[in-house]
Amino acid sequence: MTGTTHLGKRRKLIEGPEKITGQARYTADLTLPGLLHARVVLSPYPHARIRGIDVEAALGVSGVVAVLTGRELNGGHVAYSRPSLLLAEGEVVFAGQPVAVVVANTEAAASDGASLLDVDYEALDSVDDAAQAEADETHVWPHGTPSASTSQASLHGAEASTAQAAAPSNVDERRVFQRGDVDAALQGARVVIDRTYLNARVHQAYLEPHAVVAQPGVRAGEVTVYTSTQGQYAVRSEVANALGLRERDVHVVPMTVGGGFGAKYGILDSLVTAVALHLARPVRLVLTRSEDMLTTTPTPETSIRVRIGADERGRIVGLDVRATIENGVFRMGHAGIIATIAGGMYRCEHVRVETVELLTNRAPVGAYRAPGVPQALFALESSVDELARALEIDPLEFRLMNAVEGGDLTGTGRPWPDIGLKACLERAREHPLWQARGDVPNEGVGLAVGGWPGGFSPAGAVCRVDSDGTVRLHVGSVDISGVHSSMVLIVAETLGLDPDNIEIVQGTTDSGPYAPNSGGSQVTISLGGAVLDASRQVREQLRDLAAAHLEAHRDDVELVEGRARVKGVPSREVTFGQLARLGERMPGGPGPVVAEGRASLKGGAPGFTAHLVRVRVDPDTGVVTPLDAVTIQDVGFALNPLLVEGQVHGGTAQALGIGLYEGLHFESGAPANPNFLGYVFPRAADLPPLEAVMVERPSEHGPFGARIVGEPPITGGAAAVANAVRDAVGVRVTELPITSEALWRLMREVQGE
Amino acid sequence: MTGTTHLGKRRKLIEGPEKITGQARYTADLTLPGLLHARVVLSPYPHARIRGIDVEAALGVSGVVAVLTGRELNGGHVAYSRPSLLLAEGEVVFAGQPVAVVVANTEAAASDGASLLDVDYEALDSVDDAAQAEADETHVWPHGTPSASTSQASLHGAEASTAQAAAPSNVDERRVFQRGDVDAALQGARVVIDRTYLNARVHQAYLEPHAVVAQPGVRAGEVTVYTSTQGQYAVRSEVANALGLRERDVHVVPMTVGGGFGAKYGILDSLVTAVALHLARPVRLVLTRSEDMLTTTPTPETSIRVRIGADERGRIVGLDVRATIENGVFRMGHAGIIATIAGGMYRCEHVRVETVELLTNRAPVGAYRAPGVPQALFALESSVDELARALEIDPLEFRLMNAVEGGDLTGTGRPWPDIGLKACLERAREHPLWQARGDVPNEGVGLAVGGWPGGFSPAGAVCRVDSDGTVRLHVGSVDISGVHSSMVLIVAETLGLDPDNIEIVQGTTDSGPYAPNSGGSQVTISLGGAVLDASRQVREQLRDLAAAHLEAHRDDVELVEGRARVKGVPSREVTFGQLARLGERMPGGPGPVVAEGRASLKGGAPGFTAHLVRVRVDPDTGVVTPLDAVTIQDVGFALNPLLVEGQVHGGTAQALGIGLYEGLHFESGAPANPNFLGYVFPRAADLPPLEAVMVERPSEHGPFGARIVGEPPITGGAAAVANAVRDAVGVRVTELPITSEALWRLMREVQGE
Repeated sequence: MTGTTHLGKRRKLIEGPEKITGQARYTADLTLPGLLHARVVLSPYPHARIRGIDVEAALGVSGVVAVLTGRELNGGHVAYSRPSLLLAEGEVVFAGQPVAVVVANTEAAASDGASLLDVDYEALDSVDDAAQAEADETHVWPHGTPSASTSQASLHGAEASTAQAAAPSNVDERRVFQRGDVDAALQGARVVIDRTYLNARVHQAYLEPHAVVAQPGVRAGEVTVYTSTQGQYAVRSEVANALGLRERDVHVVPMTVGGGFGAKYGILDSLVTAVALHLARPVRLVLTRSEDMLTTTPTPETSIRVRIGADERGRIVGLDVRATIENGVFRMGHAGIIATIAGGMYRCEHVRVETVELLTNRAPVGAYRAPGVPQALFALESSVDELARALEIDPLEFRLMNAVEGGDLTGTGRPWPDIGLKACLERAREHPLWQARGDVPNEGVGLAVGGWPGGFSPAGAVCRVDSDGTVRLHVGSVDISGVHSSMVLIVAETLGLDPDNIEIVQGTTDSGPYAPNSGGSQVTISLGGAVLDASRQVREQLRDLAAAHLEAHRDDVELVEGRARVKGVPSREVTFGQLARLGERMPGGPGPVVAEGRASLKGGAPGFTAHLVRVRVDPDTGVVTPLDAVTIQDVGFALNPLLVEGQVHGGTAQALGIGLYEGLHFESGAPANPNFLGYVFPRAADLPPLEAVMVERPSEHGPFGARIVGEPPITGGAAAVANAVRDAVGVRVTELPITSEALWRLMREVQGE
Repeated sequence: MTGTTHLGKRRKLIEGPEKITGQARYTADLTLPGLLHARVVLSPYPHARIRGIDVEAALGVSGVVAVLTGRELNGGHVAYSRPSLLLAEGEVVFAGQPVAVVVANTEAAASDGASLLDVDYEALDSVDDAAQAEADETHVWPHGTPSASTSQASLHGAEASTAQAAAPSNVDERRVFQRGDVDAALQGARVVIDRTYLNARVHQAYLEPHAVVAQPGVRAGEVTVYTSTQGQYAVRSEVANALGLRERDVHVVPMTVGGGFGAKYGILDSLVTAVALHLARPVRLVLTRSEDMLTTTPTPETSIRVRIGADERGRIVGLDVRATIENGVFRMGHAGIIATIAGGMYRCEHVRVETVELLTNRAPVGAYRAPGVPQALFALESSVDELARALEIDPLEFRLMNAVEGGDLTGTGRPWPDIGLKACLERAREHPLWQARGDVPNEGVGLAVGGWPGGFSPAGAVCRVDSDGTVRLHVGSVDISGVHSSMVLIVAETLGLDPDNIEIVQGTTDSGPYAPNSGGSQVTISLGGAVLDASRQVREQLRDLAAAHLEAHRDDVELVEGRARVKGVPSREVTFGQLARLGERMPGGPGPVVAEGRASLKGGAPGFTAHLVRVRVDPDTGVVTPLDAVTIQDVGFALNPLLVEGQVHGGTAQALGIGLYEGLHFESGAPANPNFLGYVFPRAADLPPLEAVMVERPSEHGPFGARIVGEPPITGGAAAVANAVRDAVGVRVTELPITSEALWRLMREVQGE
């Protein structure tokens, strides 16, 4: 993309100053008259009967106004997902499940009350892990897995039964995606690698814990929900569905988000709204870090077996993947994306991906940046690395030879649009880190590829020019990654205006306009088209007004720096503010300068990556130190390179965390490290220099050629770490995170061989 | 207008329930964390030097946090209008001028503090009334009248001088509008009536006093203003101008308005904003009734001489009007509208209207529903009545013979568009009240005509369909008269949807879209066009989506009751909610259902009236009892007849108040009755049966033929009262209000003759 004035230039986040000066308003900063504070009491047991709840001591705390249990609050509602979950009733089914809410005039009183709440549990048999789940002796849902339909029936007065016709099973869903004859193909392969890889549950570990304020409205059943969310329309649906409210009565106000990474789509909004409506008072709930890590939605634990074979020329001939996904108590669908990616990175005729989604008595899992893909690619890319080694082919050249391009199939059998996977690999080949791979003992460089297909939902936007020349862009999207700072640049580019004169107006669910969730990497490309559409219309409106005012032909009017002027006659000019006033005041004129844009991409704009990581392994301890991390990513066109780079850095850092540090450990079915002391993730000082290399192969669908950006950089980094460890010390790790103890043991085994 | 489903039907106010149940949020209901309460201290003197202000006692009141005077607050700013006025500095120039603000944690503490503030005044010579002003011995502004330009200079650091080149004068402006040779025409007339009419200052007397909450923003100079206003964009401009802020930093949130009638365009917003920014705290000011009547903007006192002559056939041949308008301390322009109406109701070749706008040491005047017109028509229509009597022509037939119609000239020489004045008179002729005029002693029926040209500014609107089928109409207008309830009907009519499924989203100055002030009767017709435009586009979007979804030709798709269906195949249908979801979710589709409408009328849609009032006069006391009041009004097309009727009733009641009861009395230059004990206006029990008769002569410009509605019903009613008194007891009153004492004296004079 050449010839742009504002797009493609590095420009800081528009909300940066208010964030770094502490002036941004997060949900926890919100105070309302008469606000009450809630504290949730969580189950310590993975499965238990609630024999009784003694609320007397809690109610005796000065300032406590109510203690609510499921009996008061649920109204017969049956939960089938984490967002639809209110309070436990009768029994608890995971450690971390909310059992009661203590509401008080102050946060301190609510905490004191919660600490005095006496819940009498009777522990029951629980399904603590995937192995137990697959054994299927104890069932998480002996009467059938609850679903949206059973829940809806409960809301509408039908019997709250969760019974299903099928026999109870912890195997929630088994799917097979296949093409060709993979068994025959692998039998005919020159080399076959067959390994199984394990991933721990990983938490999104956003800085801002979940926080919700719900304020009852003036009419019965009406409520305003202030929340830290990635998708206000999603929260509205969740709350309306869970509580049987009309969507139009649920007004969601999206607040500043302190990190989401896929986890902020209404986990607590229904609960807090129910409490507020029950008490007819505004209520705030801000989770502590521990509560957050216990009761929200981490990634699934996975076990992924990969059988992959190639012929003597290095062509991959068969790929067989079996992924077991441990989802916790509620159903969750990672199958499609795991199949898409695991079976869709390399050209291959014979592919089978089988997914098995299991239920356990653990907290339900959720989305985390490129859900399922780091796990799938750790398995695939470790095996591909081994396969290249076995064939004695350079692993980069091996990947380049086999990598998919536009028109090749994903693992679910759909053709990719034009993509830049090969371009990333070619750039990696030239990178000094790859070029300079050497023989330093215990140091190694690993390569892995990554990618994410990305969504491309429709979106709307409204653009208007105000009488002081300020251009206001009205959007219904939530900004979790600087997307609005890029939207401003699209308007600036289109109108010929300094971005400082453009303001974002964040719509609520009432004022809209509609925008998709800020997740799945889609919002920039989805919203960008609508913003471009709206601002182009505004441009034409301004030119028409200017042509009339300056008595010139509209084709001779150009927009430059907030002014419309006649080409070649710089003295004949009029400001945008003057034009807006003309529109607002001129009787019989065209009307105020305002336009709505609607856009819907014809196809996706997937982003692919190549990850290079250099590590040093301490041979005495097994400690892995990352020394360099380079993420080469096809971004299509970087609307704002500074922010794209930030996304790539962030995703890379998280990939290193997944590879080396992060994991929720379970003991007796409960997380043993639900806090930032026990749950280790990379601090700034733990991170190596991060380098983002942008490949710009324009997307055929994204605005200005832009591609999705958010998820790709997290996808292949952990696999690259594992491959770097293999390169450094000759050991193939098959479990993430790579702990020093596990690696030390592996190295000892290899030395022992 | 025939064949409509929703328009033209009586439908209640959408905000009615929340208003009558006390749930509507007015500015005074707003509470913010850390909110401070302000109380203004007003000058009791029309003109005085402030020798000193002792703040010690006030500051000693528990809870008082600040006492601010002009020295702290004004920052050198020079006021030139009521909205630009902050606090007095050095001297006061009218009784009621804010001298200081006491700010406290509670309203009670602020009031206590204000009562203890000790201001040392030295009374100075003042210009107390119009006669003194015309004498021009003492000058209100000896150094020149402040204007917008001198004020701007003060803001930008130039010397705060108000000096002007011209000699000081209390005559702010003298204008003459004329055509033909009126003196010659009157000389040749068969009959000439020459009388002078006086109108008292009248207050708008809205139920809700002025109220403002200002909350400083996160950036320096940024502020959010919550206010009871008729025009949020006007308030934004006033505040930004007065305080030297950027318009984009002033965020105005329009609150529910408890009556405006022309007076709510930012009278206190600059002051309260200045206090909030000075203290860096949110501040609320709610005036008491007395404060409100002292410091806000009533109508001017006027003295209007009318010379009018007709020939022997009853044709008006000449009209000479001289209006003296007493504006208080600041300039105000009533000249144009007085001339338009006084010289524009009757066809006449020779017309002169001279206006003299005077300055006095009184509170500055402002707009009140059809500003200047009740005064002008009291004068004109009383004289026309006398003229008809002198010619022994039926006063209705006399008016009908001379009344203007489309193409005839206004008093400023512009042609009227098509109007319904004659149609109103014709309807009046048939009315039983007119038909049954009888000879009951001391009872009489008066007739007068009225009208208002009305504004027709451009407006914008955004309409969208939400995923639950709710249609949201996003507007930047303020609803003071049920206008939004009519806008909903336009959407309902256009989309074929029950109005209950349509919600209004009130935009702020940030979210817009732009709409003109809710004043001058323009907002319904201005906004209506934009709403119609937006909803028509939405209709087409829905039909396109439905045609694709139902696999039908778009011309075969009809929208009925929130569904799109194939004509003749009622089973093939899809709800608006489903269509919205299609738009929001279908990749490659047309995008979310949303459209912006812009409209600008090509011309105005004036509303004319004929007023019939029947009164009984007590011959012993002069007390006038109104027995019937009929207002016949050409509304073009009543979008919602219930609300139109409400407007006509309200205007008629206010006209009776102006005619019989209302007036601010001045003693020593200060209002003597600034409260609802001393200022008399009609209570419900004082009002006669009010009848609204709607004439529907479609406007060529207004949407669906609608005409302006708000101002016309107040315009001629007071004149009709005076003519009814004349009819009842043979006495011509020339001063409003018609007090019993004055009428009794007049009757005594007539009896004495």
